[in-house]
Amino acid sequence: MPVIDLNADLGESFGRWTLGDDAALIEVISSANVACGFHAGDPSVLRRSCELAADAGVAIGAQVAYRDLAGFGRRFIDVAPGELRDDVLYQLGALEAFARVAGSRVGYLKPHGALYHAVVANEGQAEALVDAVRTYDPTLAVLGLPGSLLLKHAAAVGLRAVPEAFADRQYTADGGLLDRSRPGAVLTDPARIADQVRRLVSGEGVVADDGTVVAVAAESICVHGDTPGAVEIARTVRSRITASGGSIQAFTNPAA
Amino acid sequence: MPVIDLNADLGESFGRWTLGDDAALIEVISSANVACGFHAGDPSVLRRSCELAADAGVAIGAQVAYRDLAGFGRRFIDVAPGELRDDVLYQLGALEAFARVAGSRVGYLKPHGALYHAVVANEGQAEALVDAVRTYDPTLAVLGLPGSLLLKHAAAVGLRAVPEAFADRQYTADGGLLDRSRPGAVLTDPARIADQVRRLVSGEGVVADDGTVVAVAAESICVHGDTPGAVEIARTVRSRITASGGSIQAFTNPAA
Amino acid sequence: MPVIDLNADLGESFGRWTLGDDAALIEVISSANVACGFHAGDPSVLRRSCELAADAGVAIGAQVAYRDLAGFGRRFIDVAPGELRDDVLYQLGALEAFARVAGSRVGYLKPHGALYHAVVANEGQAEALVDAVRTYDPTLAVLGLPGSLLLKHAAAVGLRAVPEAFADRQYTADGGLLDRSRPGAVLTDPARIADQVRRLVSGEGVVADDGTVVAVAAESICVHGDTPGAVEIARTVRSRITASGGSIQAFTNPAA
Amino acid sequence: MPVIDLNADLGESFGRWTLGDDAALIEVISSANVACGFHAGDPSVLRRSCELAADAGVAIGAQVAYRDLAGFGRRFIDVAPGELRDDVLYQLGALEAFARVAGSRVGYLKPHGALYHAVVANEGQAEALVDAVRTYDPTLAVLGLPGSLLLKHAAAVGLRAVPEAFADRQYTADGGLLDRSRPGAVLTDPARIADQVRRLVSGEGVVADDGTVVAVAAESICVHGDTPGAVEIARTVRSRITASGGSIQAFTNPAA
Repeated sequence: MPVIDLNADLGESFGRWTLGDDAALIEVISSANVACGFHAGDPSVLRRSCELAADAGVAIGAQVAYRDLAGFGRRFIDVAPGELRDDVLYQLGALEAFARVAGSRVGYLKPHGALYHAVVANEGQAEALVDAVRTYDPTLAVLGLPGSLLLKHAAAVGLRAVPEAFADRQYTADGGLLDRSRPGAVLTDPARIADQVRRLVSGEGVVADDGTVVAVAAESICVHGDTPGAVEIARTVRSRITASGGSIQAFTNPAA
Repeated sequence: MPVIDLNADLGESFGRWTLGDDAALIEVISSANVACGFHAGDPSVLRRSCELAADAGVAIGAQVAYRDLAGFGRRFIDVAPGELRDDVLYQLGALEAFARVAGSRVGYLKPHGALYHAVVANEGQAEALVDAVRTYDPTLAVLGLPGSLLLKHAAAVGLRAVPEAFADRQYTADGGLLDRSRPGAVLTDPARIADQVRRLVSGEGVVADDGTVVAVAAESICVHGDTPGAVEIARTVRSRITASGGSIQAFTNPAA
Repeated sequence: MPVIDLNADLGESFGRWTLGDDAALIEVISSANVACGFHAGDPSVLRRSCELAADAGVAIGAQVAYRDLAGFGRRFIDVAPGELRDDVLYQLGALEAFARVAGSRVGYLKPHGALYHAVVANEGQAEALVDAVRTYDPTLAVLGLPGSLLLKHAAAVGLRAVPEAFADRQYTADGGLLDRSRPGAVLTDPARIADQVRRLVSGEGVVADDGTVVAVAAESICVHGDTPGAVEIARTVRSRITASGGSIQAFTNPAA
Repeated sequence: MPVIDLNADLGESFGRWTLGDDAALIEVISSANVACGFHAGDPSVLRRSCELAADAGVAIGAQVAYRDLAGFGRRFIDVAPGELRDDVLYQLGALEAFARVAGSRVGYLKPHGALYHAVVANEGQAEALVDAVRTYDPTLAVLGLPGSLLLKHAAAVGLRAVPEAFADRQYTADGGLLDRSRPGAVLTDPARIADQVRRLVSGEGVVADDGTVVAVAAESICVHGDTPGAVEIARTVRSRITASGGSIQAFTNPAA
């Protein structure tokens, strides 16, 4: 029986502002990418997110980001690698405090937003993230895009590199994601999403935009929760995985 | 031979802005109160400060503060206790990451600026700090003003409460500090400072502003380093302690 | 026919986070208290808010606040008067730029959250706000609580001081507001709110919590819009004013 | 007699942190690029800077930047043009408030740090700055690098575009600046700097790194003040201009 992880972002509220239906989402996923305060997540949000995850037996990952509340971490910032490594270390440690107090631990790192995309090809920034994890705690896993420099460098220094796939994104023939600006980039047809999930779980490859079938090696599937509709899709993905004979399980041990 | 700790603030630079002569100060003290990013200290400053302290065998404390870069943590903020506890936990965890990477650990907490003064008498905020330490790591000590609610509550829940004294502040007959707005509040005469240090180390009590001698139970003496003159005074304090037959030693173990 | 203003907070979103139904609210009010970036409101939110208000012929006020995004300006900060005056001037100027580009102007100042409550009795902070307005543009009005130091000082230096009332808050016999922590502090019964609005408009005085009738001199009524229910109440207040024979009109000229 | 402007950055302190010797620098320059709070400059610094400039009869420019205190505006941020335009408008308005209260006005815009370099070739960001100025106040000038998209677009929409030169930077044969990472990029020999200033003022062209003479059309020369040595160089530049028969004068009118 294939085993796969389901991950989603959690804790992206800040102060007076609420974002996402964390309580609903936590019932669906096996790994929570918890915002660490640089793009979202004030300290009390970190606490509640870690408690929510710990209580639900969901693994906690550090969703690290550029320091950019106003831009929600979605704008590339040309941070020097040494500074980025320190920014990441700061976020890792901050989240770890809440994870431990909640009786859990940080199990992995996943970059957020523009940083997620930058470390696909940006050598210095990819190495900065790997350096932060390696020097902080080499038992942490790194979650990211298959083929990214982030995962390559993580694996090269002996870290566990975990590739993820997307249930609702259109793939291209080379295994990449169709750019968001292109029509059809985001799947909305439930049947189409369900089929892609089945294919990801069974390992038979997904259907690219040119109709060819392309292999996507994923140990985790990423879902979203920042709209009510997104939670519905996440639930569909979950039930489709189990219906496909798959088992949902975190790739790290959520126990402290 | 009396043993006493010498503590000072470290790591209060931020980004392009430099404050304090950390390299000089680290040679003088046995405990460094490292800023954690909320009033000063960007992540790279935290790294350098922890490395500096670890290399010098100086203990690392978390100098936690209100979230107030513009005010340098010097303005009272009426933060709800639960939020303050989480703000403190966030800072503790962030600093811990750098302390560990530097081969050391966070040994204690000391509140900064307006928070330092608030927890003398503010019940909710004093308990918030104690809660943060107790739930995060009950082996951490708490450094503060003798007689403060912070130290009382810390001791009440079994934390190590460490009272500190000031080499260059005029005491009042009740053992408090003469308000900074009053003439003579800050001692500047080296002979007067030297005498107060000798008295603190020997335990014979300091001379209050009314001429009486008042007992001040201090396990640590606080010095400053944010002006060249301050480092000179710190050096004087250090040499006066050893000349008084005292031994300078951190109250926590700087080894990881 | 009595003339009264209806004011509400606008533009309290920030970056990725949305708060309030500004598009619905702008149809109801005659004056918009636009957040200026210190507690909420990124620059693009300021632009959209000013355009919304200008297009609807609604007057624009600067809803100035403590510098506290994490606390949404709801926590008292003991800012020195000189610094607070400058913080307010900064916000006034920033909003003015967007108001002018939208073809309107800033017509008044209203403090937000904890600052609103502080300037009821805090001498230094009340004078700081008045100083900022007086030196920036003495034709600006100041909107606040009747009897507050803010309005007293504003009037004393010749500024237009505009007292406001609340449609959905229980008054006490001395004309103050029943503390929010007390039961019945916030009115929820539509008939009760409608009656209070009628009384405010007609000038016959509101019913205090002890049953006595107390005079409340208000030139503006404050409504809220940060929940769907609140917008409904605001609409009710508006229709009740006109049904009571009142006319709704801004106390400043929204035209540039 | 050739007329030229001397500009320098001012007001780059923030809160507890001081940077630059503004009092010395203001005696040397004719135009002050005042930081507006996004990379440096809290509101009280803006006030003091504007008062300093107004009292000295020095023109005030808005030194606008990316929102990045931690990076001092020195890191490229991929801000969408519409958001950047609004960020710039916000800064322009905020500074204008202080300039007016000081009895002066904002006369021009100059981008800071990474934004300065971005708008040399980044179409969207260059247009964002021009849009902000054009819609806010088309009588403002724009100060920047000769040949930059910023100056081209500014001129194209009828704004006054003012090219600046550097007294202490090595030029290349195409009129550009030798990259800072290259040896000799920054001139330190006083005689060499003095000669370059004389050449800039007289209009005979500067000596490029390959020995050729290249024309540099500058209406302003940029000097620095964030180190004591820099102020010395600025003074040298000033005296060399007058010794070369030049007259130092702002390109905008500092009077309100």
